[in-house]
Amino acid sequence: MSRIPVAILGATGTVGQKFVRLLGDHPWFEPAVLAASEQSAGKRYGDIVRWRETTPIPERAADMIVRRCDPPLDTPIVFSALDAATALPLEEAYARAGAYVVTNASAWRMDAEVPLLVPEVNAEHLGLVRTQRARKGWAGGIVANPNCSTAALVLALAPLHRAFGVERLFVSTMQAVSGAGYPGVASLDALGNVIPFIGQEEEKIERETRKILGAWMEDGIAIAPITVSAHTNRVPVVDGHTETVSVGFGRRVSPEEARAVFESFRAEGVVASLPSTPARPVELDLRPDRPQPRLDLERGGGMTVTVGRLRACPLLDLRFVVLGHNTIRGAAGAAIQNAELLVAEGLVPR
Amino acid sequence: MSRIPVAILGATGTVGQKFVRLLGDHPWFEPAVLAASEQSAGKRYGDIVRWRETTPIPERAADMIVRRCDPPLDTPIVFSALDAATALPLEEAYARAGAYVVTNASAWRMDAEVPLLVPEVNAEHLGLVRTQRARKGWAGGIVANPNCSTAALVLALAPLHRAFGVERLFVSTMQAVSGAGYPGVASLDALGNVIPFIGQEEEKIERETRKILGAWMEDGIAIAPITVSAHTNRVPVVDGHTETVSVGFGRRVSPEEARAVFESFRAEGVVASLPSTPARPVELDLRPDRPQPRLDLERGGGMTVTVGRLRACPLLDLRFVVLGHNTIRGAAGAAIQNAELLVAEGLVPR
Amino acid sequence: MSRIPVAILGATGTVGQKFVRLLGDHPWFEPAVLAASEQSAGKRYGDIVRWRETTPIPERAADMIVRRCDPPLDTPIVFSALDAATALPLEEAYARAGAYVVTNASAWRMDAEVPLLVPEVNAEHLGLVRTQRARKGWAGGIVANPNCSTAALVLALAPLHRAFGVERLFVSTMQAVSGAGYPGVASLDALGNVIPFIGQEEEKIERETRKILGAWMEDGIAIAPITVSAHTNRVPVVDGHTETVSVGFGRRVSPEEARAVFESFRAEGVVASLPSTPARPVELDLRPDRPQPRLDLERGGGMTVTVGRLRACPLLDLRFVVLGHNTIRGAAGAAIQNAELLVAEGLVPR
Amino acid sequence: MSRIPVAILGATGTVGQKFVRLLGDHPWFEPAVLAASEQSAGKRYGDIVRWRETTPIPERAADMIVRRCDPPLDTPIVFSALDAATALPLEEAYARAGAYVVTNASAWRMDAEVPLLVPEVNAEHLGLVRTQRARKGWAGGIVANPNCSTAALVLALAPLHRAFGVERLFVSTMQAVSGAGYPGVASLDALGNVIPFIGQEEEKIERETRKILGAWMEDGIAIAPITVSAHTNRVPVVDGHTETVSVGFGRRVSPEEARAVFESFRAEGVVASLPSTPARPVELDLRPDRPQPRLDLERGGGMTVTVGRLRACPLLDLRFVVLGHNTIRGAAGAAIQNAELLVAEGLVPR
Repeated sequence: MSRIPVAILGATGTVGQKFVRLLGDHPWFEPAVLAASEQSAGKRYGDIVRWRETTPIPERAADMIVRRCDPPLDTPIVFSALDAATALPLEEAYARAGAYVVTNASAWRMDAEVPLLVPEVNAEHLGLVRTQRARKGWAGGIVANPNCSTAALVLALAPLHRAFGVERLFVSTMQAVSGAGYPGVASLDALGNVIPFIGQEEEKIERETRKILGAWMEDGIAIAPITVSAHTNRVPVVDGHTETVSVGFGRRVSPEEARAVFESFRAEGVVASLPSTPARPVELDLRPDRPQPRLDLERGGGMTVTVGRLRACPLLDLRFVVLGHNTIRGAAGAAIQNAELLVAEGLVPR
Repeated sequence: MSRIPVAILGATGTVGQKFVRLLGDHPWFEPAVLAASEQSAGKRYGDIVRWRETTPIPERAADMIVRRCDPPLDTPIVFSALDAATALPLEEAYARAGAYVVTNASAWRMDAEVPLLVPEVNAEHLGLVRTQRARKGWAGGIVANPNCSTAALVLALAPLHRAFGVERLFVSTMQAVSGAGYPGVASLDALGNVIPFIGQEEEKIERETRKILGAWMEDGIAIAPITVSAHTNRVPVVDGHTETVSVGFGRRVSPEEARAVFESFRAEGVVASLPSTPARPVELDLRPDRPQPRLDLERGGGMTVTVGRLRACPLLDLRFVVLGHNTIRGAAGAAIQNAELLVAEGLVPR
Repeated sequence: MSRIPVAILGATGTVGQKFVRLLGDHPWFEPAVLAASEQSAGKRYGDIVRWRETTPIPERAADMIVRRCDPPLDTPIVFSALDAATALPLEEAYARAGAYVVTNASAWRMDAEVPLLVPEVNAEHLGLVRTQRARKGWAGGIVANPNCSTAALVLALAPLHRAFGVERLFVSTMQAVSGAGYPGVASLDALGNVIPFIGQEEEKIERETRKILGAWMEDGIAIAPITVSAHTNRVPVVDGHTETVSVGFGRRVSPEEARAVFESFRAEGVVASLPSTPARPVELDLRPDRPQPRLDLERGGGMTVTVGRLRACPLLDLRFVVLGHNTIRGAAGAAIQNAELLVAEGLVPR
Repeated sequence: MSRIPVAILGATGTVGQKFVRLLGDHPWFEPAVLAASEQSAGKRYGDIVRWRETTPIPERAADMIVRRCDPPLDTPIVFSALDAATALPLEEAYARAGAYVVTNASAWRMDAEVPLLVPEVNAEHLGLVRTQRARKGWAGGIVANPNCSTAALVLALAPLHRAFGVERLFVSTMQAVSGAGYPGVASLDALGNVIPFIGQEEEKIERETRKILGAWMEDGIAIAPITVSAHTNRVPVVDGHTETVSVGFGRRVSPEEARAVFESFRAEGVVASLPSTPARPVELDLRPDRPQPRLDLERGGGMTVTVGRLRACPLLDLRFVVLGHNTIRGAAGAAIQNAELLVAEGLVPR
């Protein structure tokens, strides 16, 4: 089987680099186009990228000539690592021109016709693409993955929501600096410090969680009626978002019930067979002081979310800690898994 | 006026050193005895302490000969920086022998007859000392200051509790490594990492908060009926505990009402005139990304707690961020202020 | 005595803020003009500065209206915290217009007619100002302080150079991120990392050291014939440059001889009485693991350089470690001390 | 081919864990015995080890019952991750009893009859084992790998030494905290700080370098007549020792000559085919700001040393920066490679 050619928009940024690395030896996809800004276009990728991954640039990618981000790029799948402002018009242009845009940008996430996908959680929302294409008159389509903090959170919530119905949620994050891109957070702000504010992050968590956990209603998504209160903080960690969570349900749920639900949670159907789906999308760690970003981040190649410290909450029902890899499960890895779902569901021909 | 001689138990540890530094030029107190473990006794303090403050050892202290912690030490006030296990019997022995033990240890904090004091918050709880002395038959007494996270938290809650009555409370902490003493947290655990667990810390926050905010009932304290859910985390910060807080009251309270309450909050009566009481025990910072430990910790000599990001909470009523200096407002400075209150209230003669 | 009005160019940057803080209560100088870029001009300093000092903005400064950096500013002394490119023409314009420009910028440091001053080391180089004014035809003048790493290094070398004559020098630095300004080093580069390169820093250390330790020859400076090899590195430290040094002389010098020289080193003559001159410009710390930036940086208000680990070098004669405060002794504090020298020597009338 | 059973002494410590991880899927060796202290003996390894690697414990190892470190352990190869004091008598006992002890401990490194091996550098020193067995009357033998800083340094020096003859050497290290084991360095000492002292480290670098680069003289090693001056520092980095180096030869050597030598350096003979020998033992990175521990540490599975910033030295001949993985190339990986050499050379039968 030959690999499907894909384009990467914003290929020189930190998320773009993560796409290049993860797609370097992907079984289904082959990076055919690396696109970036005007000033990078026409140059060899290896010469202009300020590569910050710890493995070398894949040789094939290093030798590619960077192109501008103008559509069309002649690949059926376009991964977008653009910033939100640029993403809005460009991504639409690609979708209109017939490509499936699999975007990590926030621009289209809350559009009522764009599915906000985490395959293990809400693969059925992909149905929204048909509505989207019909209503918007696009030859292609757009699917989005959530914000990095939300991605880890909804994976931890999904088993509980299915079993017990989440109604109330408190989350306080401790987010890694890689979430802000490069150069991102100044070292004078980050070193030995906590910054208790990340612009628009709390709003994203609160609304994206409700959309992702919402019900699929044939031609739209019924936003889940969950009350969410998010506090977001930046801490001096390179990779890995840690989140403390308290959650309340319609009825009392004990830690033991929740443990059983976490331990039996698996990806289902076609999702289980996607190359990027880990054996265990959520892993419960029973050790008293886990998860920790330095020790538990690489599980499942960065696609497994770790839950720890599961215990009763005096105020809601349960409390626990969630750890997710913000640039893999929360960005590039998530988008790649979404593209795999598009292929597995037949929207993009193999 | 001559200064009152005081003893410091555990004078070589990190909290003990903070006592030595803060008392170096205190207007009311004079360190007359530095006490530590068997192996330090008989030696010059300056020769054996592994001094970790950034200002030099006060010269007078450096030249003092360390004594053992055995009572009596012949000072009317004994500051205790002992660990909990050692503190329990030793502190009682001093109290029995006639001294006022002003302790930072956790051993006696939840004893029904020991006041857990934050002078700006519950100075009236000092009345419990009379009950204590009567019931326990002690010639002296014991007063305790709360755990470091609780100290900052209750200062931020006190104005709100007085005005509106706190009923429900979430708090998620990001605590500095200095809270664990020396050597404390291993650098392999702390660097670039989050440890989402601190032994017994959540329990301390939950119960100490209720006691401190409890009502003084002439011969005892009525524990405040507040439901508290605490999540505690260690982050790679040297000094300063940052806490995200959501709080609910008996009625809806708006951020504007809360702002007015924070801005008018001041120490009252005799407490306002204690040397360690800052001009503003709680300061509200309106900048969007504050407070931060690296920038806001030294306010009021480390005795001012900073509140920021005051806003509505979708789940309870209000949310905000609290920052406090864990080794000053949360330890040595708190104990010194408590001792000042003992003097100002006439329990220890000047 | 009324205070001398001074201007601060680049007052909103990190070094500019340090000037504002240090001059907030200076006995001789009063900030009369705060100047910055076009877009800041006309606005209240307190409203536009992103204040990063840990003490509050001096109230008088906060209320000042920022001006543009265009000469003249009508103050006899102009402190410059400009970047090198801007500094070159602007500083000359001020000097021509009659002001004494006391600059932290690198632009004029190596000009043969500009003294590169560290008052305790080479106050006599100030004589060069007369030559400068005559040859350049300026009504005012320019004096410069060295690069931050060099400032600490030459203070440690000066006592040895006077006593024994330094001939060869190896220095490897571990520099704080504050030396790169704000935003400066990205946290993704700084956290848990070493960056073994700082642009032009090695060249600056090598040539500035030779100029500062050069001999004053009535109308010029004879560059010291010292062979210097510098390695410069950025480490995840906020403030404080640590430097490992090996030094060779014309004859064998023992650590004991060097110790005596360090311990007797004091500022001399008028320099000793400048407000910013510390009691001990260089302090020798005999503890085996010192100096450390977290513990030893604040000595002498940040103007004292600490030397430690003095021992024989198998290759040259001596080795030791030097620690200096890069934004005080290596920047704003150094410039202020230089201005004090201008006043004390009568170049600027009181 | 069946795998050779090996024992790991000190299997629960940080270096011991690294052995367990690296040997988890080793093509030649199979961990047959995990030995540790009295209190661990008799327990399941997975239950008692405080595992700090980021990959899971190899399942086979997790299920093994820990044994005491008493000889004999009935394996032809014994890896030792013991501390120096324990290592001295125990390692001798194993060697006497017939095992080859491949040790990371410092106890035997400078023994005139123990080879201090870095296979790409001085594989011929292995000949010393014959002398050792004859003179000491041991049935087995001991081979040691160097201290972690020395391991990286000598790999960078070896190509230069062979080509030009190193005579003089400066090295200033910036060492990771993992080099001190667990708990090792306190976070209060490490965070945002530099500790310019590591006990006995400078002495080890100075003497081990001379031994490793010494000439093999049939029945002994002629220590290389190199004058070495080492400065050692601890920096807040988790893994990876960075070293700035200046080196002088008997004649002038240009950076271009050195570059050619580095680029052509390869492992030779049987060493090139050892499983742990990387394709490039030393890699020269020409980018101006490399190597950096966060980006360049994992080259060659942690067995490749990266050299960067190669340039002329004003004082000696060349300067450059060396980066090595301290717990792989500087500890467990080095020992495993040494054991592979023992097998390849026929001292241990396959």
